[in-house]
Amino acid sequence: MDKEFNIAAVGNGLKEALQQKIDNKTKPVGALGRLEAIALQVGLIQHRLDPVLENPLLAVFAGDHGIAKEGIVNAYPQEVTGQMVKNMIAGGAAVNVFCRTHGITAKIIDAGVASELTDDENLIDRKIAAGTKDYTKEPAMTASQCEEAIQAGAELVSTWQQSGTNIIGFGEMGIGNTSSAAIITSLVTGQSIEACTGKGTGLNKKGVSKKARVLKQVIATHDIEDHPLTILHTFGGFEIAMIVGAILQAAEEHMVIMVDGFIATAAFLLACELYPAVRNYGIFAHKSDEQGHRIQLEYLQVEALLQLGMRLGEGTGAAMAYPMVQSAVNFLNEMASFENAGVSQGGKG
Amino acid sequence: MDKEFNIAAVGNGLKEALQQKIDNKTKPVGALGRLEAIALQVGLIQHRLDPVLENPLLAVFAGDHGIAKEGIVNAYPQEVTGQMVKNMIAGGAAVNVFCRTHGITAKIIDAGVASELTDDENLIDRKIAAGTKDYTKEPAMTASQCEEAIQAGAELVSTWQQSGTNIIGFGEMGIGNTSSAAIITSLVTGQSIEACTGKGTGLNKKGVSKKARVLKQVIATHDIEDHPLTILHTFGGFEIAMIVGAILQAAEEHMVIMVDGFIATAAFLLACELYPAVRNYGIFAHKSDEQGHRIQLEYLQVEALLQLGMRLGEGTGAAMAYPMVQSAVNFLNEMASFENAGVSQGGKG
Repeated sequence: MDKEFNIAAVGNGLKEALQQKIDNKTKPVGALGRLEAIALQVGLIQHRLDPVLENPLLAVFAGDHGIAKEGIVNAYPQEVTGQMVKNMIAGGAAVNVFCRTHGITAKIIDAGVASELTDDENLIDRKIAAGTKDYTKEPAMTASQCEEAIQAGAELVSTWQQSGTNIIGFGEMGIGNTSSAAIITSLVTGQSIEACTGKGTGLNKKGVSKKARVLKQVIATHDIEDHPLTILHTFGGFEIAMIVGAILQAAEEHMVIMVDGFIATAAFLLACELYPAVRNYGIFAHKSDEQGHRIQLEYLQVEALLQLGMRLGEGTGAAMAYPMVQSAVNFLNEMASFENAGVSQGGKG
Repeated sequence: MDKEFNIAAVGNGLKEALQQKIDNKTKPVGALGRLEAIALQVGLIQHRLDPVLENPLLAVFAGDHGIAKEGIVNAYPQEVTGQMVKNMIAGGAAVNVFCRTHGITAKIIDAGVASELTDDENLIDRKIAAGTKDYTKEPAMTASQCEEAIQAGAELVSTWQQSGTNIIGFGEMGIGNTSSAAIITSLVTGQSIEACTGKGTGLNKKGVSKKARVLKQVIATHDIEDHPLTILHTFGGFEIAMIVGAILQAAEEHMVIMVDGFIATAAFLLACELYPAVRNYGIFAHKSDEQGHRIQLEYLQVEALLQLGMRLGEGTGAAMAYPMVQSAVNFLNEMASFENAGVSQGGKG
């Protein structure tokens, strides 16, 4: 990769002090469950005993996929990507609603939508090309397009970091992109493509089998020893490549990264393959109903915070997890300790 | 029961129209998972296609338990109930933090704390007595005290309803009250007391066995055919009885009820035994790590929204679930439909 990232491992220097602060709160040890782990993680990422969440932002990257033109792997036609981007710009998609509800700024980025989108103050135009090539026939993008997309994602995150954002989530929109994510997941984790292939936005059982068959053929022609960047430019969407760059930059900036569902986690997998230190910057938001997501989470040895049966993408899972992260940080900062509140501690068996 | 409640079943009149509205949103059918079920339920409770959540409120009822004086079933000493109430009044407990974080008004009620609490504008004094009697020796309260507690809970909810609250959660604080909840759960569901007994605020394995042994002895002397009110006055805490009354009144007022963890669900079980129509007013917030909670949820045939490994009570689970309910109602009201947004619908296999 031309661009080098400078990603420091999340340090454990404050771990003991943070754990002690958590354990001294007026509650039995461990009684806030997963929220305690999140509070600890955010403290470690920010290297602070009193972490703060500032200007939460969710960036939705949209791109089209050459393979979707044929309509073999997707239940919705390719035009839907552009239509949904317009819906997002107008504030009418699920991710807009959840961002408004939870005080998160939503940013919509054209990473490579096939249709022409008119200029709009709510749309960030970083279009690499009008959709990727069909990777059943040729690589989805050139190595330099992939590089360009990674660079664009990184630049955007830098800008947002300079505006004060220190917690960020990434979403996506792209008809056909569960196929890219399935291939990436299979190649990175070593699990079969059948296990990584799900119904996407709404294929039936027969459709899923057909999709897996097509993707298996594609993979059969591929050298699985390939570098993550080769996987990315061969099968990736522009939106996925841009998210990879965005994740790497967010980790470099010591941001808390809220990792959404199947496609965002595919990007996270690649980012971790490139820079293993990225892993501890991620909070895994929502366990998708898309079956390959379970494989990704197991490979990363992490658990998602929520499991609401959602399978929509857009960053909806990350947006829903934000109030949980808020709660975790706020209990760490605002809850009384046993000493301050004059509450007796337990300990009896 | 002296007081009669007038609880209408949640009607299905708008079910089809609500489902159609949900399915026409710009997303694949079912892609918002559990949030779709919540949106439907809130719409049915309010009998509106455009439900609204107003002045969300969380009421924490505190009471002491005679059995806790001996320290056999509890890891923390009885004084902690009063100390934690003071902590809540001062805004330092976990439930205060989560309520502030999510825009929920917290109300703290002394239902029967053993220690003397000084007057405070943030404390609602409805003390029935300074703790219940030890039910290993005699009934926890008299039938008329139980009646009085139910009445008090109902009156408070009426007041809040008149102030504009239409969504409410109930929490509790009371050292020893997981024992009451375990007995209630065992007697209502017919499951063994061992299965319903967990570690409460922090017993170890040996402590849990001892607690189950004590409670088994208590139950052995009890006629399991008894009426729910008999179960309640024999084993209940004042806080549990008050929550029963509060739940019944909330259902009468067509409020959305956010049901917290093990103790609040024990109260909900009794409320449902008294008035089966109550059930569909409840949203089950968080699956507690307290093992008896699983039994309660299975008995009610419901699933909790969140599973964050919390086991704190106080209403913390209900407070954490509120942003999820908000998201559900907001997507129903604010998301664009396929028609409005000009997005093509799927349907291909």
